[in-house]
Amino acid sequence: MEGKKFLRLLSLLLVTFILFIFIFIRNSDLPSSKNFHYVNKAAAELELQPPPRKLTRHVHVSDMARHPLDPLTVQEMNRVRSIVISHVLFKAAKCYALHSVVLEEPPKPLVIRWKEGDPLPPRKASVIARVDGGTHMMSVDLGSGRVEFVDVGQVSGYPTMTIEDMNTATFTPFGSKEFNQTVVARGVDLKDLACLPISTGWYGKKEEKRRLIKIQCYSMEETTNFYMRPIEGLTVIVDMDSNQVLEISDNGSDIPIPQATNTEYRFSAQKNIHHKIKPINPISIEQPKGPSFTVENGHIIKWANWEFHLKPDPRAGVIVSRAMFRDPDTGELRNVMYKGMTSELFVPYMDPSDAWYFKTYMDAGEYGFGLTAMPLDPLNDCPRNAYYMDGVFAAGDGRPYVRSNMVCVFESYAGDIGWRHSESPITGMEICEARPKVTLVVRMAASVANYDYIVDWEFQNDGLVNIKVGLSGILMVKGTPYTNLDQVSNQEGLYGTLLSENVIGVIHDHYITFYLDMDVDGSDNSFVKVNLQRQQTSPEESPRKSYLKATRSIAKTEKDAQIKLKLYDPSEFHVVNPSKKTRVGNPVGYKVVPAGTAASLLDLDDPPQRRGAFTNNQIWVTPYNRSEEWAGGLFVYQSHGEDTLATWSERDREIENKDIVVWYTLGFHHIPCQEDFPIMPTVSSSFSLKPVNFFERNPILGIPPNFEKDLPVCQATSSTS
Amino acid sequence: MEGKKFLRLLSLLLVTFILFIFIFIRNSDLPSSKNFHYVNKAAAELELQPPPRKLTRHVHVSDMARHPLDPLTVQEMNRVRSIVISHVLFKAAKCYALHSVVLEEPPKPLVIRWKEGDPLPPRKASVIARVDGGTHMMSVDLGSGRVEFVDVGQVSGYPTMTIEDMNTATFTPFGSKEFNQTVVARGVDLKDLACLPISTGWYGKKEEKRRLIKIQCYSMEETTNFYMRPIEGLTVIVDMDSNQVLEISDNGSDIPIPQATNTEYRFSAQKNIHHKIKPINPISIEQPKGPSFTVENGHIIKWANWEFHLKPDPRAGVIVSRAMFRDPDTGELRNVMYKGMTSELFVPYMDPSDAWYFKTYMDAGEYGFGLTAMPLDPLNDCPRNAYYMDGVFAAGDGRPYVRSNMVCVFESYAGDIGWRHSESPITGMEICEARPKVTLVVRMAASVANYDYIVDWEFQNDGLVNIKVGLSGILMVKGTPYTNLDQVSNQEGLYGTLLSENVIGVIHDHYITFYLDMDVDGSDNSFVKVNLQRQQTSPEESPRKSYLKATRSIAKTEKDAQIKLKLYDPSEFHVVNPSKKTRVGNPVGYKVVPAGTAASLLDLDDPPQRRGAFTNNQIWVTPYNRSEEWAGGLFVYQSHGEDTLATWSERDREIENKDIVVWYTLGFHHIPCQEDFPIMPTVSSSFSLKPVNFFERNPILGIPPNFEKDLPVCQATSSTS
Repeated sequence: MEGKKFLRLLSLLLVTFILFIFIFIRNSDLPSSKNFHYVNKAAAELELQPPPRKLTRHVHVSDMARHPLDPLTVQEMNRVRSIVISHVLFKAAKCYALHSVVLEEPPKPLVIRWKEGDPLPPRKASVIARVDGGTHMMSVDLGSGRVEFVDVGQVSGYPTMTIEDMNTATFTPFGSKEFNQTVVARGVDLKDLACLPISTGWYGKKEEKRRLIKIQCYSMEETTNFYMRPIEGLTVIVDMDSNQVLEISDNGSDIPIPQATNTEYRFSAQKNIHHKIKPINPISIEQPKGPSFTVENGHIIKWANWEFHLKPDPRAGVIVSRAMFRDPDTGELRNVMYKGMTSELFVPYMDPSDAWYFKTYMDAGEYGFGLTAMPLDPLNDCPRNAYYMDGVFAAGDGRPYVRSNMVCVFESYAGDIGWRHSESPITGMEICEARPKVTLVVRMAASVANYDYIVDWEFQNDGLVNIKVGLSGILMVKGTPYTNLDQVSNQEGLYGTLLSENVIGVIHDHYITFYLDMDVDGSDNSFVKVNLQRQQTSPEESPRKSYLKATRSIAKTEKDAQIKLKLYDPSEFHVVNPSKKTRVGNPVGYKVVPAGTAASLLDLDDPPQRRGAFTNNQIWVTPYNRSEEWAGGLFVYQSHGEDTLATWSERDREIENKDIVVWYTLGFHHIPCQEDFPIMPTVSSSFSLKPVNFFERNPILGIPPNFEKDLPVCQATSSTS
Repeated sequence: MEGKKFLRLLSLLLVTFILFIFIFIRNSDLPSSKNFHYVNKAAAELELQPPPRKLTRHVHVSDMARHPLDPLTVQEMNRVRSIVISHVLFKAAKCYALHSVVLEEPPKPLVIRWKEGDPLPPRKASVIARVDGGTHMMSVDLGSGRVEFVDVGQVSGYPTMTIEDMNTATFTPFGSKEFNQTVVARGVDLKDLACLPISTGWYGKKEEKRRLIKIQCYSMEETTNFYMRPIEGLTVIVDMDSNQVLEISDNGSDIPIPQATNTEYRFSAQKNIHHKIKPINPISIEQPKGPSFTVENGHIIKWANWEFHLKPDPRAGVIVSRAMFRDPDTGELRNVMYKGMTSELFVPYMDPSDAWYFKTYMDAGEYGFGLTAMPLDPLNDCPRNAYYMDGVFAAGDGRPYVRSNMVCVFESYAGDIGWRHSESPITGMEICEARPKVTLVVRMAASVANYDYIVDWEFQNDGLVNIKVGLSGILMVKGTPYTNLDQVSNQEGLYGTLLSENVIGVIHDHYITFYLDMDVDGSDNSFVKVNLQRQQTSPEESPRKSYLKATRSIAKTEKDAQIKLKLYDPSEFHVVNPSKKTRVGNPVGYKVVPAGTAASLLDLDDPPQRRGAFTNNQIWVTPYNRSEEWAGGLFVYQSHGEDTLATWSERDREIENKDIVVWYTLGFHHIPCQEDFPIMPTVSSSFSLKPVNFFERNPILGIPPNFEKDLPVCQATSSTS
C-alpha cells in the first residue's frame, strides 16, 4: 500500500516535470503527459476495449458530422489542430495551449432552413488559445483551412482552464522545498498528499495581469475521501503560465488534520454497517420491448412526440438544440426551443477568512462543466436500457480524446400519474380513468473536484420540460480545533456546521444559470408577465370582498424582464408567439415555471457578486445575440464582471416580438448538516418549461392506459433466485 | 342510449323520494337509498367478488383491531351504531344522521407506551351526529357502551356532509316545477341533467341558522364529461335538513351551453387521435422478488429503516402515525412524527359574480377528503406490486361500508440517484460510486366532484419524507357567450381563460394544509428558525465585502412561529429535540423544506379568507392539543371562521421544548390554459421533512449499488411479443 502510494507520487512528479517541458517546448508531440496518457488511453479504448456492460460503443475515429449542429468529430478536431498549429502565430510561439476547440455553430437561419439530406453548411471550429501569454479566439474554416481571428474586445478574464492547467498547477507546489517542509511540519507524509486547484476569482490588483490559481491540499492517508482531511489554512498561489509558486501561506498550524475515521464511501470499503440497513429487493425499470426512443445519426433523439438534437459540450455539459414537438392534433412538428444549456454556475462560500474568502466558483467558465463530467455508472447513475453518449473533446494540444458514457438518455416511470379522474357515487357514473406518466430523461453528472452536479433534462409527453439539478458528492470542508459544539462560544464564528470532530461544513450557495433560446412556433416571441393581484370588490358588486385578477403585460425592453420572484406578488412568465393564436384566440406559448429556489444575498458591489451578477435576478430576457451565451462572460476566469448577462441586460434592448433568449437561475442555500458527511445524499430542485395555450387541448388525452397483458413477465435472475 | 338515460333518471328520482322517507322516518332500515345500495354493494363485494387483478382482498367483516390507532372495524362500527341509536336522544329524535363515526384515538402517552402484545387501551368511537337539527359530538365507549357528550362550545358551522346529504341535495331540485321548467327553457332535456352539490360557505345572515347548499347543473348529453357543459348562471339553494328548494336564480339565460365536442376523456371514447401520438413500449417497475415492504396487522408498514402506522380516514384521507426510523448506526428505532395528515383544503375561485363568488371550497371539512377518495386503478394510479388498503367508513345511518383500494403503497424507482461521486482525472483516483434512489410511496386520490387531488407520502431510505400533492381531474368551468378572444374587449372581465368555444376556465387557488405532529426523538421539541442574512465585512477583515451568516433563534411562543416564506430573507425551519445532541453537539432535528408554493392574497377580512385564515401563513407551530386537528375548525361547513388555526395561534402559547405540532400549507395559483381542457395533466408540488443532524452521518452510506446479476430478467408477455 505505502509503496504503491510512493510510486504514484513519483510518477505524478515525473508527469509534472514532463508537463513543464510540454509547456515550454512548442508543439511538443510527446504523448507522455498525464493528460496525453489519458487521451491515448481514451483513444485506445475506441478500438481495443470491449464495450463494458453490453453498451454499444461508437468507433469515433470514423465519426461523420451529419447535422449542422453535430459537434466536431475526431477527424475534424485533428484537421483543426493541424490548421491551427501550422498558422504563423503558433509557429512563432514559444508556448501555447488550446483552451477550447468546439463547433462554431452555423448562423441560426441556416440551421433552421437545413433539412435532412441537404448538404451541411460549411463546418467551422471556434478555437480559444493562449499563445505566449495572450488569449486569442479564432474561427477556423475546415474546408478552406482559413483562420479568422475574432475580436473579443478588451475584456478582463482568461479562458476556461485546460485539464493540463489543472494538473500542472496541482503538482507545481511539489517543486517547492518550503511547501514540502510545511506539509511535513503539519504531520502529513508527502506520499499521502492530494492537492486541488482552486480558482482565485478577482478581488483587485493582486488577481490581475497574471493567470493565478490557489492550491490547497489534503491528506489521503487511510482514505480515498481526502476532502474530509484538509490541511487547513495552507494555501499556495501558483502562476499558471510560468508554473511558479508565488506565495505560500500557512495560518492553520494550530488546526489538526481530521481523522480518516468514517470518511470512506466506496462500497468495497464499507464493512460493519450494512446489516443495520434493511436490504431492499431488486427493483428495476423494465422495458422488454426496449426503450421507445431512437437516436438517429448519433445526436437526434426522437421520443413520443419530441424530437431534439443532443450533444456534449466541454463548457456547458450538454446542449439541447432544435427541440420540437409533434402536435397530436395536426401532426405538425412545432418549434419549442432552439437551444438550451447550462450557461454558468456560481458557488460562493460564506467564509471571509484568508483560506476561504476566494472560494466563489464559476464552474462552467473556470473548470468546464463538460470537461469535469465523468463517465456515468450504468445501473446506478442511469437505469437499465439507458443509451450512453460519449463526449469528444480536445486536449490542451488540440488532440481529441473521448469522454465515454458522459451523457445518458433513458425513459423513466416512477409510478406517477399523467392525468386521472374518478366519478364519485354522487353522479352515479362509474368512471375511473388514469394514465401512467412516462418521461424521457437526458442526464449528465459533472464532478467539479469534490462536488457532483446531476443535470437532468426531463421531457414529458404532454410537452412539458422539467430541468432538474441534483447536488451530491462531497462537501468542501474546513479544519477546526473544535471536536464538540460545547467548546464553541460563538457558533456563528464557525461559518458553518460542525459535521464531525475537527470538521466544519462551510455554508455556501449554488446558482445554476440556464440559457434558454425559446422559439415558440418560430423565432419571434414576446415575454409576457401575467401578474396576479388582489382586486377589491364594491359591496353591491359581490358578497366577496376580494378576488385575484390576472393582468397581462408584455415586456417591451430587457429591463421590463429583469424578474425577482415574489411569493406575495406572483406572476406567470409566458413566452408567446404574438403572431400565432389558438382556435379561440389565445396566443400560443410556453411558460417558465419556477419551483423551489434561492436568491443571492451578497452585496452587489462584492467582487464575487459583480462577477456573478447574472444571479441578481432569477429571470432575464435578452434579444438573441450569438456572442451572448455565457452568463458570466466568455472569459470568466479572474474576470472583473464587466461582461456578464447583467451588463448586457442593462443595455435595455427591445425584446417584444423578437428572437429572445430566456435566462433562468436555479439557486440553493446550503447549510451543511451531519447527514452530508462523508458524502451527501442528493438534494435537488428544478424548474419547468410548460406549454400554455400551446396546444388546443390536453395533448395526452389519447394516450392509452396500462393493461396487464402488455406488461412484462419477469423473474429474478438465476444467480439470485 | 336515450332510453338508458331516462331509466337512470327515473331510478334517481325514485332513490331521492326514498331518501326523503329515510330522512323523516327515524331509524329507517330501508336498505334502499342510493348510498345504502352502494354500502350493500361494497359489503357484498367483501364475500362474493373475486379480488380483481390478483389483489388479496380482506374480508373486513372479521377484521380485528390490533393496534391502539387501528380504525374502527366493521364489527365495532355496528356496535357503535347499536349503542348510539338505542340512546334516548336518538330514540326520541324525529330524524338524525351520523356525520362522522371514527376511532377516538387514545391519549398520546398510552399509545406511545403501548407495545405489540399489550392489551389495547379501551376502544372508543368519536361520533358526530345531527339530531333534529342539532349537532352533537359523542364519545362512545365500545366496552361499557357508555355515551359521553363532548362540549364543542358555541362555534358556528356544521359537520362534514354525509354522502346522503350530497345525494339528496343533488336530486332535490328535481322536485321543483320551476326548476324543471328553467332547465327545459335552457334547452336541456331533463334526462341529460347532472347536478352538483356546492358548499355555500358563509357571507353573512343569508348563510346562517340553516344548513344550506347550492346546486348547479350541467348537460350530460353526448358526454360523460358534463362538467364542460354548464348551464351557466342557474343556481338552486337547498335546505339540507328540510330538503326544500329555497331559491332558484337563473341569470345565464343568454349563455349557450357549450358543445360536447372534444370533451370526452374515457379511453373507450377516444377515436381519431391515437395514431398521432407515438406509442410507447411497455415500461414497468419490476420486482421479481416482490416488494421490500411488509404490512403487519393490516396497518403497520415496514420498509427499509422506516416503520409507521397507516390508516384511511373519512375526513383527512390518510393518516400516517408513529413514523419511526431505525438508526443504521445504533439499530435504535427513533421517533420522527407522531401523526401526519391532510388537515384542510381551501379552494377559492376568483370570480365575484352571483353564480361563482361562493365557490371557496374546504374539501376536507365540507365534503370529506377520504369520503371522496375513490378506488385506485391498479397499473395506472399505482404501479405493479402496489399494496391496496381499503377504507371502512360509516354511512349516514351508521352502517359501515367499504371503500376498496382507497390507498396504495408501493416502492418507486425513477432512475434517480441517492448519492454519487466520481473522481476527476486530476486526482488520478479511478472512483465512480453511485447509489440508486428507491422510495416508498403511500398514495390516495380524492375526487371532490370534478377535481382530483393525488396525495403522496414519499418515504426515502435516508430519512427524508416528501409530501406531494398532484392536481388533476376536471376544471370547474364557466359558460360564456364568447367563442373567440377577439370578441372580448376586457379580457380581465372573463375572470379566467377562454378554453374552448363558450367555456371559461376560472382562475382559482388551491391550498392544502398539513398537520404534522413531529416528535423528534421524543415529544418535547423546539422550533428553530435558522435565518440567513448578509453580513458586511470590514476592509481589513477580508477582500470579500459580504457573506451569508446563519443565525439560530428558538421560537418561544406561537407568534414567533407564524412564518411567511421570503426569497430574500430566507430561513431554514428546524424542529429539534433540545435535550438530545449528536456526538459533536448538534441538537438532533428535522427541518421543514418548502418547495414551490403560493400564498393566499385575498383580503384578510374577506369572509372566505376569514374561514381559510389557516392559509395566512405557510408555517405555523402550535402546542399539541387533542382538539386542534382541523385547521379550519371542527365544523367548517358554513363556519364563520372563529375556530381556525389562526385563532388558536393568536393565543400565543408557549412552544419551546414542548410537544409541538407543525402546520404547513402547500399552495397553487391556477390560471387555467387550454391544455387543461377537457381534463388536466397532473400539476404537482411538494414539501419535505428532512433530517438535519438527526443522524451522525449519511444514513445511506452503506446501501449497496445495483449489480447486473441482481436485476430481473424480463420478457414481453406472450400476448404482445
